Amino acid sequence: MSDLHEECGLFGIYGPENDVNVAWYTYNALFQLQHRGQSSAGIAVNNDGDITCHKDLGLVDDVFNAEVLGKMSEGQFAIGHVRYATNGAETRENAHPLVIKYHNGPLALAHNGAISNADKLRKELEDGGAIFQSTNDTEVIAHLIARERKETESIEETMPRVMKYLEGAYCLLILTKHKMIAVRDPYGFRPLCMAKAGKSVIFSSETCALDVIKAKFVRDVAPGEIISVTKNGINEIMPENPGKSHICVFEYIYNARPDSVIDGRSVYKARIRAGIELAKQYPVDADIVFGVPDSGSVASIGYAHESGIKHGIGFIKNRYVGRTFIMETQDQRIEAVRKKLSVLTDTVKGKRVIVVDDSIVRGTTSMQIINLLREAGAKEVHMRISYPPFMHPCYYGTDIPSQDALIACQMPIDEIAKTIGADSLGFLSMESLKTVLKNDELEEACKGCASGVYPDR
Amino acid sequence: MSDLHEECGLFGIYGPENDVNVAWYTYNALFQLQHRGQSSAGIAVNNDGDITCHKDLGLVDDVFNAEVLGKMSEGQFAIGHVRYATNGAETRENAHPLVIKYHNGPLALAHNGAISNADKLRKELEDGGAIFQSTNDTEVIAHLIARERKETESIEETMPRVMKYLEGAYCLLILTKHKMIAVRDPYGFRPLCMAKAGKSVIFSSETCALDVIKAKFVRDVAPGEIISVTKNGINEIMPENPGKSHICVFEYIYNARPDSVIDGRSVYKARIRAGIELAKQYPVDADIVFGVPDSGSVASIGYAHESGIKHGIGFIKNRYVGRTFIMETQDQRIEAVRKKLSVLTDTVKGKRVIVVDDSIVRGTTSMQIINLLREAGAKEVHMRISYPPFMHPCYYGTDIPSQDALIACQMPIDEIAKTIGADSLGFLSMESLKTVLKNDELEEACKGCASGVYPDR
Amino acid sequence: MSDLHEECGLFGIYGPENDVNVAWYTYNALFQLQHRGQSSAGIAVNNDGDITCHKDLGLVDDVFNAEVLGKMSEGQFAIGHVRYATNGAETRENAHPLVIKYHNGPLALAHNGAISNADKLRKELEDGGAIFQSTNDTEVIAHLIARERKETESIEETMPRVMKYLEGAYCLLILTKHKMIAVRDPYGFRPLCMAKAGKSVIFSSETCALDVIKAKFVRDVAPGEIISVTKNGINEIMPENPGKSHICVFEYIYNARPDSVIDGRSVYKARIRAGIELAKQYPVDADIVFGVPDSGSVASIGYAHESGIKHGIGFIKNRYVGRTFIMETQDQRIEAVRKKLSVLTDTVKGKRVIVVDDSIVRGTTSMQIINLLREAGAKEVHMRISYPPFMHPCYYGTDIPSQDALIACQMPIDEIAKTIGADSLGFLSMESLKTVLKNDELEEACKGCASGVYPDR
Amino acid sequence: MSDLHEECGLFGIYGPENDVNVAWYTYNALFQLQHRGQSSAGIAVNNDGDITCHKDLGLVDDVFNAEVLGKMSEGQFAIGHVRYATNGAETRENAHPLVIKYHNGPLALAHNGAISNADKLRKELEDGGAIFQSTNDTEVIAHLIARERKETESIEETMPRVMKYLEGAYCLLILTKHKMIAVRDPYGFRPLCMAKAGKSVIFSSETCALDVIKAKFVRDVAPGEIISVTKNGINEIMPENPGKSHICVFEYIYNARPDSVIDGRSVYKARIRAGIELAKQYPVDADIVFGVPDSGSVASIGYAHESGIKHGIGFIKNRYVGRTFIMETQDQRIEAVRKKLSVLTDTVKGKRVIVVDDSIVRGTTSMQIINLLREAGAKEVHMRISYPPFMHPCYYGTDIPSQDALIACQMPIDEIAKTIGADSLGFLSMESLKTVLKNDELEEACKGCASGVYPDR
Repeated sequence: MSDLHEECGLFGIYGPENDVNVAWYTYNALFQLQHRGQSSAGIAVNNDGDITCHKDLGLVDDVFNAEVLGKMSEGQFAIGHVRYATNGAETRENAHPLVIKYHNGPLALAHNGAISNADKLRKELEDGGAIFQSTNDTEVIAHLIARERKETESIEETMPRVMKYLEGAYCLLILTKHKMIAVRDPYGFRPLCMAKAGKSVIFSSETCALDVIKAKFVRDVAPGEIISVTKNGINEIMPENPGKSHICVFEYIYNARPDSVIDGRSVYKARIRAGIELAKQYPVDADIVFGVPDSGSVASIGYAHESGIKHGIGFIKNRYVGRTFIMETQDQRIEAVRKKLSVLTDTVKGKRVIVVDDSIVRGTTSMQIINLLREAGAKEVHMRISYPPFMHPCYYGTDIPSQDALIACQMPIDEIAKTIGADSLGFLSMESLKTVLKNDELEEACKGCASGVYPDR
Repeated sequence: MSDLHEECGLFGIYGPENDVNVAWYTYNALFQLQHRGQSSAGIAVNNDGDITCHKDLGLVDDVFNAEVLGKMSEGQFAIGHVRYATNGAETRENAHPLVIKYHNGPLALAHNGAISNADKLRKELEDGGAIFQSTNDTEVIAHLIARERKETESIEETMPRVMKYLEGAYCLLILTKHKMIAVRDPYGFRPLCMAKAGKSVIFSSETCALDVIKAKFVRDVAPGEIISVTKNGINEIMPENPGKSHICVFEYIYNARPDSVIDGRSVYKARIRAGIELAKQYPVDADIVFGVPDSGSVASIGYAHESGIKHGIGFIKNRYVGRTFIMETQDQRIEAVRKKLSVLTDTVKGKRVIVVDDSIVRGTTSMQIINLLREAGAKEVHMRISYPPFMHPCYYGTDIPSQDALIACQMPIDEIAKTIGADSLGFLSMESLKTVLKNDELEEACKGCASGVYPDR
Repeated sequence: MSDLHEECGLFGIYGPENDVNVAWYTYNALFQLQHRGQSSAGIAVNNDGDITCHKDLGLVDDVFNAEVLGKMSEGQFAIGHVRYATNGAETRENAHPLVIKYHNGPLALAHNGAISNADKLRKELEDGGAIFQSTNDTEVIAHLIARERKETESIEETMPRVMKYLEGAYCLLILTKHKMIAVRDPYGFRPLCMAKAGKSVIFSSETCALDVIKAKFVRDVAPGEIISVTKNGINEIMPENPGKSHICVFEYIYNARPDSVIDGRSVYKARIRAGIELAKQYPVDADIVFGVPDSGSVASIGYAHESGIKHGIGFIKNRYVGRTFIMETQDQRIEAVRKKLSVLTDTVKGKRVIVVDDSIVRGTTSMQIINLLREAGAKEVHMRISYPPFMHPCYYGTDIPSQDALIACQMPIDEIAKTIGADSLGFLSMESLKTVLKNDELEEACKGCASGVYPDR
Repeated sequence: MSDLHEECGLFGIYGPENDVNVAWYTYNALFQLQHRGQSSAGIAVNNDGDITCHKDLGLVDDVFNAEVLGKMSEGQFAIGHVRYATNGAETRENAHPLVIKYHNGPLALAHNGAISNADKLRKELEDGGAIFQSTNDTEVIAHLIARERKETESIEETMPRVMKYLEGAYCLLILTKHKMIAVRDPYGFRPLCMAKAGKSVIFSSETCALDVIKAKFVRDVAPGEIISVTKNGINEIMPENPGKSHICVFEYIYNARPDSVIDGRSVYKARIRAGIELAKQYPVDADIVFGVPDSGSVASIGYAHESGIKHGIGFIKNRYVGRTFIMETQDQRIEAVRKKLSVLTDTVKGKRVIVVDDSIVRGTTSMQIINLLREAGAKEVHMRISYPPFMHPCYYGTDIPSQDALIACQMPIDEIAKTIGADSLGFLSMESLKTVLKNDELEEACKGCASGVYPDR
């Protein structure tokens, strides 16, 4: 039930056979990546070198319909994007993919991540005469490509020089006149995988988008890797000194869908293990355990299995929450969380309940959740959080608020418990977090928002 | 995961104090009743005797926004409606509430149920000179009210005569110039309850809509009862020979939200008991049990608790399914069920799984669900259905298809299992169904779609 | 430049050959009748007995597009309607055609005019048990048809009885299961003509809609006449005692398009004659004469030709005026008339100008028009009005305001001239008005809004 | 009735007083400039250095409404734009104003004209690393500004260097953090004037936009002039060697509204003079003369006055033409010109008519117009064109088609007459054209599309 947002979801496809409607496949895949971005959606299609793009604010199903997709039905390449903007600039201009024309022709670009030195690069580019029409860092990348690319070289030859400038997290899908390129930053902060469906070549932020189009997972794109796809085949370019994956641990806890497998590790299993660790670390005598839907649900099963306490369903999540709007005075009386979550009183009444959630940010949502449970008659409410407390910023695209808004920066855990009204409260320890992935790998994975230690700093 | 649909959800409110925005409260409540109807939504407001209405095709959040609600912010009474049409006539004309003018002034009418003799009544009314502008049976009720009501009598005096003509299931909310009336048919097929919030009087199809506006449940409207609300108070008119409740059992199994309490019985508990009974009746050695979301989820907990088999999450349900549309040839390759449901492979792979669902209608959806599980590596798939086989029509508003489309009318259960690809298949028996409610009460409750025996025939 | 509005425009077509798209023809014709109603538009199509209807608020081109018309492309009959509501009830419910089902099947109804005893009929119908879903008098007519029609008789046999109840002005187009019926009230207040295009039979409020679909005018529908069209032919039913035409004179002066011919008289010629009469009656020494576009333009040519004064163009009318909206304080500074009309300074500056308009209602628009001319440097402004002063109500569908709002009821003409700032002012006299039509016929034509004498009272 | 289109209309305002709503004034002015562009509209507002922009495809009244303008109500500067794209790229990306961020902060840019060396400049800029997100030449200008502007200089110091690169026609309105800048190209191809309203400073493509906001014309912006407006005052920068105005003559004949005054010459008077010259040059015995609305109307008055032949109204132009769309086979039968123009038969029947139009491009429209007149019974049709034949391209923003589409490049004038069905045909001669402006000035004015001689080539 974290209100945090990651930046985006990506999908790309090359369909050599005429009967593959690349825009239609991309639309269906974006639909499965919708959890990675609900503020805008877009698809760019390359049909024999002509790139057209449709994008707008809204959900995938708001932006695309049969008429729009009908006009995009011809093409050999498509890239698609769903977006959540961390900086509030929810404008049409910021929707992806970005399509530009430059000295090497047309180029479409979709990006997931956050360029941590974007402001500096933007300033340098502006000083060099560049103009910007949006506030997102994808336009910075496009300018760098335009500046760096020599007319005689391929985009694959350009990209390593571009990547030298970029700091932070980025997965990129790029369409040029004759190619689709996939790029993952050298630290591998954000996920990107390659798949196949028949003769089609596919890239996707998460594996959960593959099944709907019956694609088969091939492998993850490696940190620092560049893969280009043309009608002549696939060209895989590994960096000279490949680094290890520093994948964001919070992808496993919250961002990704539990049916995805990222960098070889199942999101589902990671959450189950997080629940198991919570049960070991913070056992408590209780009648029932359940998660806050959706992200706490799987971890609560792990807790239940480990503790032997019965697993149940404590909340109904309203599936129809659309564009929320404000009705001044009246609105204050109807709390947002009440609109989204309804308690199953029979699960809770007179019971000692354990409720598992993925994180506590400001504390207000947790407070309202516990309040709902108390109103429904819970005798005790024990909250378990499947991630350590947020205490540091994220430089890689998760919109963790500033430290003065983070409750864990303001008070010790027992006081948080009191503030939110929990009988007990446990956060997964940094130590236990290791088990969520595998021990040796956790050393590498990014958990900077909890530890303050960052792979690239 | 039944594709069946019930007709509607109702909500009404009288707010004597000026600071209660009756339209806003109705909007928020309809939002919680959205599962009872996704094809149209509407609210009629009575402001000092003037009735205005806003309604359209679409979800509650498609039809209403701040601007529309802003124009309806004055008023003492409001009734709201969400609708799913069983007959396919998804037109704007058929949206509710219906607002008419007749010899006693304006009248707004919202209806949940199905008048089984509507065609006959419509014919009679037409023969008497009536004209119809829609195809729904609510207009039949409006005509009967207009025909029966004498100028010297109150609407409460008229309604018993109107009800004598009506057969089938109906809960009604009616606004007149100075009153709100709630009516429930003498068999009580569909749910309707009364609640209070401060000095406000409320009616709602389900209790799950009460919490968001902090209303307190008072009691269920009794079968055959008429309740009128004016600024002078509440007038409760019981029928002379009150019948017993013949509430639809399938409301408990599928239609209603599990956090609702209907006619004194918790929907959640009924589903848990259905799961327990299934476990008793159809035990099987397995590794994991889970439900088909959302309606199978609670029953699967009952099964798990009773059987001792671990409870898990087998499917992710995509929350963003909007207006679906068709892309001709391409669409055939992307099965609808795949767009809505994704398997959690880790839950399933190499496992013997028990999957609990609420019903099997044509069999195609179950076949696709089992197919998804097999693809994900399930070793065995045992399906348990928390309701007996559908073998008969429903005359009260659930759109069960004709018998030649019902798989249970075509073949014995073991053959259904083979057809849908299940290793074993069990339907809750009629006998066990008794336990879902309480034994003595089940005799009265309507389970005609399973038994072929109907309370009013 | 009158702000008055008449009620509606009608068009109907029977197309026996498969290659006639009746909805498309109706759409194109409505487009030419748009001046008769800009608030809503609708088309009902009869395809082998099934009647479907599309209608909404807005201009013809807002309501209809290729997708909507594509769905209506099959059919043998269509009736269409554009509407301006005189009573302000600009709701979707009031849009036409009205489609009902009654004991004789489906029926679609489009109406131009105003039933002057509608309130009384509505009351009687309500007392007889009728319910109303709109506030327009078309629904009254539908109820009367339903009440009067016997199952054994044809609609043509029913209509004379229905017409006995109706008072006021009405032209009707009706679709039944197998027929299209055209009806004109016994006084012939509003225009309706019959035309042919190939084997297609057509009815239209004005002849100006015929050219776009290359239809040929056949004749006007006679007062009191009923004409029915089926695939077997045309049935023309004249009333037993046919009355004379009492066509509204203001149709010629303002309502109709100048390229229409109504009841055998050219609208253009009537306006030219009105201009000539004004020149005879109110000669003045001036440099230039022009009309207030669009309705004053033709009369100003008559004035110029008769007087020998040069004809010019004094105003540009902005063609893009759409949905107007209000911006509070700022709006007061930008007068509505300034947005619609711009003066051609070169025509006016230092000149003695004669400006011809069709009417003066409240006087405010005329005041603003003269003010614009003065600002542009006109030395003298002489206003000529091609109709006598409005001093009485209209019972037949033109929304003349109440007498206390009519400037001509408040003061003598010379004072009106002073009030609006004109150097001189002349209204066409009742006497001269005779010449606009032909002398003998004017006795019959309705000019009640000027004379207070009404054909049916 | 030319189907030619010019590029755009511009409006800008600085409003120092708090009670001037600059966006609202700009909206009202754009509404009066709508004839200069119907494909998109936009307004950028500068509020204390923050620039926000709203723009979209559609008419001014489609793009703006009370809600949108309400959000833009604060600000000291605004620039607005209406656009017609000559190259068919009617995309949202191409709508104006263009808003960018570069090393000197934010900048909004609106442009009327056509940069004739845009492709070359674009190529150079791309080679220098620039990226383009649209296909319009305004983005080229923005890149040049960004490239040329030094951080220590003012935008007024930069613009002369930018203008050295630009060839062709351009009027620019630019918003920076603290200024509004107006620029007109050294040849003055397109119009731009300065005005005042109270303390507000205004720029507008045409004077016809001034009246609605009660602004007073001050002077035309001179060819090559740069004017900057800040809260501290107005800075007028004349080029060192100012050229003469080479204003496009066709602005007077067709593009501009007749109530505008451009470069000191009244558009109305120019058209009257064109009509007079046509009457002198091509006299013919006839009964009536009229124009093809709207652009031929004024010239027809000149013809009438000079020839002594009666002036009339021959056509009604349908005011409601909206988004036109195609209905396949049916559409061919309904000619576009028939939808827009209706003949006034009474003006034409049995008459020898002179019809005045502004130009003949391909000949098809003229052919249809004459056909309509013949159908209506015209005995003779004499066509007079108030401009010489189009025989050469326009490099300054008017979309004259290629020579093989221009009828005047295919055949002599007498053959054109035969082809379009005219009894006689006369084009204003190059010689007579001089009189339209003043003799000495015509030498300078651009009439390249007729003469093939261009001021800057």
